[in-house]
Amino acid sequence: MERYDQDLAFMLRYENVAWYEDGKVRILDRRVYPTEVTFVECTTYKEVKKAIADMVTQSAGPYTAAGMGMTLAAHEVEGKTEKEQTEFLAQASYDISHARPTTANRMEIITKGCLEAAKKALAEGRSAVEACFCRTMDSLNRRYSTMEKVGEYLASLFPKNGTVMTQCFGETIIGMMLRAARKHKNDIKIYCAETRPYLQGARLTATCCAQMGFDTTVITDNMAAYSMQHKGIDLFTSAADTIARDGHIANKIGTFQIAILAKYFGIPYYVTGIPDKDKLHGEDIVIEERDAKQVLSYRGIPSTIPRVKGIYPSFDIVPPHLISGVVTDKGVYVPGLLNDYFKGKVEEFY
Amino acid sequence: MERYDQDLAFMLRYENVAWYEDGKVRILDRRVYPTEVTFVECTTYKEVKKAIADMVTQSAGPYTAAGMGMTLAAHEVEGKTEKEQTEFLAQASYDISHARPTTANRMEIITKGCLEAAKKALAEGRSAVEACFCRTMDSLNRRYSTMEKVGEYLASLFPKNGTVMTQCFGETIIGMMLRAARKHKNDIKIYCAETRPYLQGARLTATCCAQMGFDTTVITDNMAAYSMQHKGIDLFTSAADTIARDGHIANKIGTFQIAILAKYFGIPYYVTGIPDKDKLHGEDIVIEERDAKQVLSYRGIPSTIPRVKGIYPSFDIVPPHLISGVVTDKGVYVPGLLNDYFKGKVEEFY
Repeated sequence: MERYDQDLAFMLRYENVAWYEDGKVRILDRRVYPTEVTFVECTTYKEVKKAIADMVTQSAGPYTAAGMGMTLAAHEVEGKTEKEQTEFLAQASYDISHARPTTANRMEIITKGCLEAAKKALAEGRSAVEACFCRTMDSLNRRYSTMEKVGEYLASLFPKNGTVMTQCFGETIIGMMLRAARKHKNDIKIYCAETRPYLQGARLTATCCAQMGFDTTVITDNMAAYSMQHKGIDLFTSAADTIARDGHIANKIGTFQIAILAKYFGIPYYVTGIPDKDKLHGEDIVIEERDAKQVLSYRGIPSTIPRVKGIYPSFDIVPPHLISGVVTDKGVYVPGLLNDYFKGKVEEFY
Repeated sequence: MERYDQDLAFMLRYENVAWYEDGKVRILDRRVYPTEVTFVECTTYKEVKKAIADMVTQSAGPYTAAGMGMTLAAHEVEGKTEKEQTEFLAQASYDISHARPTTANRMEIITKGCLEAAKKALAEGRSAVEACFCRTMDSLNRRYSTMEKVGEYLASLFPKNGTVMTQCFGETIIGMMLRAARKHKNDIKIYCAETRPYLQGARLTATCCAQMGFDTTVITDNMAAYSMQHKGIDLFTSAADTIARDGHIANKIGTFQIAILAKYFGIPYYVTGIPDKDKLHGEDIVIEERDAKQVLSYRGIPSTIPRVKGIYPSFDIVPPHLISGVVTDKGVYVPGLLNDYFKGKVEEFY
């Protein structure tokens, strides 16, 4: 853990709080953070899967939760035969990684990584629990190290003391981006769209930016055009839950329309993240439809009468022509040339 | 009141509930409707002004509230000298009409109308209270009659059984539009953006559409592009709080960006309302900035930490090149030719 400095301490609070210890995984409930700081406690991997599906944690959180869930699964079958343990863990790997459809391929890299580590450990007479936990921590460190490079490339695109718009934005990358900005003495201002229905932009992204000492403003999702027109937005940036090799990206619902608005105003839009090797085209991306009840209410208070319907697509897809560049650990790519990312050495990310 | 038929009954619930009786004005609290049905009771015109400023009522509601507020002001000075009554009512007219800056010119038509009616009544030895009340009811009937024509023109633009997107949308015009659609046996579907921070789109517009029997879906404000792409939106329509003669219009925050998205997707955008004679240019429109606390919370639940800032512009301005047509009581105008509206006879609207 020597990599964590004070700036990174905040990340632990957001991400590492999916934590295995003594037969339990505790996950910070981001659905109510920062108004309330509560944890969901899981004693089976299936509860971890459910927590991921219920969006107790999101952004990069599920990747840590998935690994900790595998650790818990290993604990659940400890002492059984090697075959029984392996079968149970293979099932857990599938179940956990498929908790949400849009990110299943990325999640599987973690859970299968744990499965392989566990198999190797069992063959060598070591503990599968320890193996899964270490694999998860390795993966976390690898993500941090990769994201540090992404943050550095992204921050190099910011105008001096400029104004950056985001919406719901992952804690690792935003932390790395802000550290890089500070290193370059670039005192950017940040506008965060609140990102209904869960308001992660307001609750998580804005909280994180303000805690790191940057001038942070929250807008409702319908103020993006107004802010671009009146508040001197220089750049829009978001993470991506999937980056297809043809330059289509999927991200939190609303990203698509902010990208259209950025184009209208001549504001560059940079996506951050690692391209998904196995997603060739935008059409390969599955958009998760969630329970529309969450759109028709806020924290349990209904906002309309029962006969009104709702929809809740979790993500939308931005086509490459709206993207100025994809910021990776290997530099900034033109979206149409994203295949080049896979030329030469590709660091293992998960 | 013979104009009100069953379809219009719903409007009474939304608009006429700013009602003067026995020295009090009761205003339906639309900030919590339909979850709660409560009324704000005012015993002075200054309380009516405050209720308008606090957005207890909105859309067309404040126009009725303004007239009822003048009626209450007349009650407050009843029995004083004619000069005292006139001076008090002149002050009330200014105060009430300027409760919110963006609509002051429209509001003044009502309050000054009441003032003139009161002066005439006093000169003739009649009650100023009665005069203000009757002027308010006249004005309401005139709006309904004008809006009926607007609704008819608007509905004639809808494709057969098509899908219409709105966001926060006034009860009079939406009611008239839906009545016209039904008359033409056009079973449109309606997508309502929820319209943060007050969620009037979800609470009021969607409730009204569903109560009138139309297939109604609420989306969060960041789902507009997704819905245009996937849900077959044929047309976007909104009301306007101001329509300048050069074709710029001001409406609820978020209208501007939906108009940009509609242009991107090739979806027509029709604005409804009566052009404002005295607003020549978009630059003449004052955008009201409200307390950002409302953006940083919902019904008192904060969505981020205290050091995060917010902004709350109530309206934004749509330029004419994004508007397909302005639907008035005299027909549909190309935004660049809106001056033509004032050629020939113009019906008094307020």
